[in-house]
Amino acid sequence: MLTSLKRWIIGRPLRTEQLQEEKLPVWKALPILSSDALSSVAYGTEQILRVLVLAPISVLALWYSLPISGAIIGLLTLLILSYRQIIYEYPGGGGAYIVSTDNLGWFAGLIAGASLLIDYTLTVAVSVSAGTDAITSAFPALHRHGTMISVFFVLLLMLLNLRGIRESGTIFSFPTYLFIFGMLGLVIVGLGNVAIHGIPANVPPVTHTFPAGLSWFLLLHAFSSGCSALTGVEAISNATPTFRKPETKNAARTLALLGLLLAVLFGGSSLLAYLYHITPKTTETVLSQIAEETFGRTLPYYYIQGTTALILILAANTSFSGFPLLASIMAKDKFMPRMFASRGDRLNFSNGIIVLALAAIALIVAFKGDVERLIPLYAIGVFLSFTLAQTGMVVRRLKQRNPGWMRKLTINAAGAVVSFIVLLIFTVTKFTEGAWIVVLVIPLFIFAFYHIRKHYEAVAEELRIDITADKPEKKDHVIIIPVGGISRVVRNTIAYAKTIGDDVVAIHVAFTEEDAEKFEKKWEQWDPGVRLVVTRSRYRSVNGPVLRFIDLVQERAGDNMITVLIPEFIPRRWWHRFLHNQSALWLRFLLLLRKDVVVSTVPFHLRK
Amino acid sequence: MLTSLKRWIIGRPLRTEQLQEEKLPVWKALPILSSDALSSVAYGTEQILRVLVLAPISVLALWYSLPISGAIIGLLTLLILSYRQIIYEYPGGGGAYIVSTDNLGWFAGLIAGASLLIDYTLTVAVSVSAGTDAITSAFPALHRHGTMISVFFVLLLMLLNLRGIRESGTIFSFPTYLFIFGMLGLVIVGLGNVAIHGIPANVPPVTHTFPAGLSWFLLLHAFSSGCSALTGVEAISNATPTFRKPETKNAARTLALLGLLLAVLFGGSSLLAYLYHITPKTTETVLSQIAEETFGRTLPYYYIQGTTALILILAANTSFSGFPLLASIMAKDKFMPRMFASRGDRLNFSNGIIVLALAAIALIVAFKGDVERLIPLYAIGVFLSFTLAQTGMVVRRLKQRNPGWMRKLTINAAGAVVSFIVLLIFTVTKFTEGAWIVVLVIPLFIFAFYHIRKHYEAVAEELRIDITADKPEKKDHVIIIPVGGISRVVRNTIAYAKTIGDDVVAIHVAFTEEDAEKFEKKWEQWDPGVRLVVTRSRYRSVNGPVLRFIDLVQERAGDNMITVLIPEFIPRRWWHRFLHNQSALWLRFLLLLRKDVVVSTVPFHLRK
Repeated sequence: MLTSLKRWIIGRPLRTEQLQEEKLPVWKALPILSSDALSSVAYGTEQILRVLVLAPISVLALWYSLPISGAIIGLLTLLILSYRQIIYEYPGGGGAYIVSTDNLGWFAGLIAGASLLIDYTLTVAVSVSAGTDAITSAFPALHRHGTMISVFFVLLLMLLNLRGIRESGTIFSFPTYLFIFGMLGLVIVGLGNVAIHGIPANVPPVTHTFPAGLSWFLLLHAFSSGCSALTGVEAISNATPTFRKPETKNAARTLALLGLLLAVLFGGSSLLAYLYHITPKTTETVLSQIAEETFGRTLPYYYIQGTTALILILAANTSFSGFPLLASIMAKDKFMPRMFASRGDRLNFSNGIIVLALAAIALIVAFKGDVERLIPLYAIGVFLSFTLAQTGMVVRRLKQRNPGWMRKLTINAAGAVVSFIVLLIFTVTKFTEGAWIVVLVIPLFIFAFYHIRKHYEAVAEELRIDITADKPEKKDHVIIIPVGGISRVVRNTIAYAKTIGDDVVAIHVAFTEEDAEKFEKKWEQWDPGVRLVVTRSRYRSVNGPVLRFIDLVQERAGDNMITVLIPEFIPRRWWHRFLHNQSALWLRFLLLLRKDVVVSTVPFHLRK
Repeated sequence: MLTSLKRWIIGRPLRTEQLQEEKLPVWKALPILSSDALSSVAYGTEQILRVLVLAPISVLALWYSLPISGAIIGLLTLLILSYRQIIYEYPGGGGAYIVSTDNLGWFAGLIAGASLLIDYTLTVAVSVSAGTDAITSAFPALHRHGTMISVFFVLLLMLLNLRGIRESGTIFSFPTYLFIFGMLGLVIVGLGNVAIHGIPANVPPVTHTFPAGLSWFLLLHAFSSGCSALTGVEAISNATPTFRKPETKNAARTLALLGLLLAVLFGGSSLLAYLYHITPKTTETVLSQIAEETFGRTLPYYYIQGTTALILILAANTSFSGFPLLASIMAKDKFMPRMFASRGDRLNFSNGIIVLALAAIALIVAFKGDVERLIPLYAIGVFLSFTLAQTGMVVRRLKQRNPGWMRKLTINAAGAVVSFIVLLIFTVTKFTEGAWIVVLVIPLFIFAFYHIRKHYEAVAEELRIDITADKPEKKDHVIIIPVGGISRVVRNTIAYAKTIGDDVVAIHVAFTEEDAEKFEKKWEQWDPGVRLVVTRSRYRSVNGPVLRFIDLVQERAGDNMITVLIPEFIPRRWWHRFLHNQSALWLRFLLLLRKDVVVSTVPFHLRK
């Protein structure tokens, strides 16, 4: 029954050979792997403007949003070029974790791995919460159920991903394309209007001198805030092996497409915001203002708003590809529990999907779905992993010195330096707002990874045998049966005991002297051909005396094995178990903690 | 570690012989078994007045509180006399359940049992919630944590009761005696004042004619509401065997004492309320008004208020003796799960105590600790069980016809009739307020009790053997070992397999053809002296192919037993388990569902 429920929810199991069929063409990979990056267009420009309006003469500062957007697009170009190289160098999937481990050693790899895992989890929490905010803004009655709605969406994403990449890709590609289409329309119509009707009169002036009170710190802060639009770029290079053949070429093509879209949409909306002289408001998003200015409150405006809400929720889906894949790679390297490495019924890494969903739900509940408090935790991991990946590529170039290495090295080095600067600015400006949590948690994760690996190595060492010398040898053993009465179950158990050995003892625990004598007499009458030991328990405990008896036998038995046979009847219905004492279960558990004791449950299936 | 924690919380285990020492002298039994009944003095008068003020000319109606209180004291006298008889007739503890079962048959007994169990649970929920209300009225800041405070008190009562009757008796006797002392003082000082200073001028007039608009229905309603002061009377007769020797005499004495106290305190406060011309207010309890009128807002006033709050919470404690005892009796009769019949470490019925606490917490949480919504559910069970117990006694008298039976019969018959009338009034007047839940739940309980008994009887029948003919016989068996690789754990398991039998097969599940061949070759090299079967799994499932193989062997084995040995390594620390796949556990569970398969876990304890 459980099995058929599972099938109905996540679909029938797939054969291992079907893995290739599950692989992605470019048109499906783009929405699955880029929804996170694309969705940040919805808030990138706003993040810049929000910092700039803090300047004393903000009208003069607003112009700087253009060079800042330009710089961000420049950084984006660097990252895209660099990750294209990673795709070709690491066709087996090369995220920051692999590139760092490969070129900078396992420690750098673990830093990157920890950052990315944290970041994927935060992405789910942040983007689902942001999407829920968009919905509850439209329907205020739902506001107090916000956390529950977010949890519901995370569970929905989990289920869709458990069904498999291909199917969820089909579902997810629609909204992403609808969003891209809408945003492109917005940028084209907006800029077209300006071209036809001329630049509006109230555009903030272009400043050639540095306005008083505008500090470099503020500009850097605005730049780093805008860089939140770059999260999610790494997902594609990480997922190279999930592409349809030729994998590397398709992945590189998808990445280039993503870069182009991101540059046009982000640059276009920054430019429109500047031309429309838009300043951020608390009640309305910058994107909504741009759309309103362009279309008025007509159908296209609502289309933009609707698809934006949708893509914010879907942004979480990128993490549902990234997290399980990274976890599986780290599990194969023995840095994470083995279960993350095995493919589920539908050929995806189901344990990673489930753990990601649970962790994101925990975050959403802990922070009550408050996006403002989650965002500061968010970008450090991204830029930490960017920096490490680029630095790794720099080291690789210097080692290999393949043809054209100087040009590639320059790109990687520039990417590394800029990412590192953004990382520093982020850490400094957001430290007290919650970034300290991430700074604290990353070392804990590294500690855990390291010790997991240590444990696996120790276990492997302990279990290893020399197959030429180490053969299994027959031993002697004593069989102990705790009996509560004389019944069909006990008869069955004794019959089994006689089957597996000759040295069998039954032990009975009596609460009073009278009961003890009565039982001994009855046993004699029955005469099952097995010795009986009766002990008295003044504390009405059965397990205590049984354990003490086993200790005693174990002392005398020396090197021999001991088998404890627990008679147990299995009720026909699961809820019948409540009607019977579960002392057998507890005894089994206590015995499992002992050495050299084998515990067998001899089941007797009730028909009623 | 778990054991020492348990000892610290509930104390060290007691020997069975210590049971007598745990028994109660009268001075301890009174607070333990009567706090429920005594606490109802705190609201009994108020319940009557609240109904009477609904009359059109309420000033004239208020006088009727006196005859109504008189009638209730009359009913109380009947009940006390009747339950005294039950104590002598049933020295082994005779609540409504036993008396009904014994004289009216098992069906009546189950009705009484169900009513009482429900009622005990409701008592805990209601009285703890009422006590919490008293506290949060004094400290309004705590108001929004009301449910949590109630849950805390229930858990506290549970722990104290798990420590044992005697110890909790010592703790609980103080507040009860403080309350009795305070209430007696209030009645004496109040009536003394009236005697010295004469009757106050504004006393409502004594009506000799029936005032217009005052209906019989209203009077009956007021009477039945006031009868809520009678809940808890049954606890003493139910608990006769927990008294110190001579049990019956001590129990009867305690019951008489309770009746006297209840009559004086309830009658006294009704009289004072009438003399002071007190009408119920929403902001202040009637008892508080009486105390204020008598003492002013001086220290004695606060003493009365404080001890009242305390005894309302302690009222729940009566149920903590009553519920586990009744559950144990019903479990011995096989109407309830066996676990309720066994005494815990401290010689009390610990499972009953825990289940009662959990059920009460569930009720408190479900009703958000709202006393007004819980009370309608409350009194039906009490009067249903009163009626059944008294009717049972009537039948008993008619059968036995011992000397003096006519007088006793009259008492019992009168008690039965009056209880039944109160029951009817309750059911009719409170049906829509929630009493329907109880009317619905009681049949469900009876259904469950009946089927539990059926199950136990069926199982006993199935397990019974003829000890002269039915002896355990040795059988043949096949041993199957699922192996994942060649390691120390597998070597150990094969060694054990060779110890318990000669017919051993190892089965390995490979995911690819290549792996299968590799493993077969390695096994040949090792040559452990055991046959190997390798199956291929295209769906990456291990348990499926293993189960199919076992099916196959089982088909061929015919009547022979099958033993499956599961190699398992036990990590040194419990959290290491997360690092290893738990497929062995799942396989064990699936195998337990099959017939004639014995599952053994051969443990290998890791040192690291």
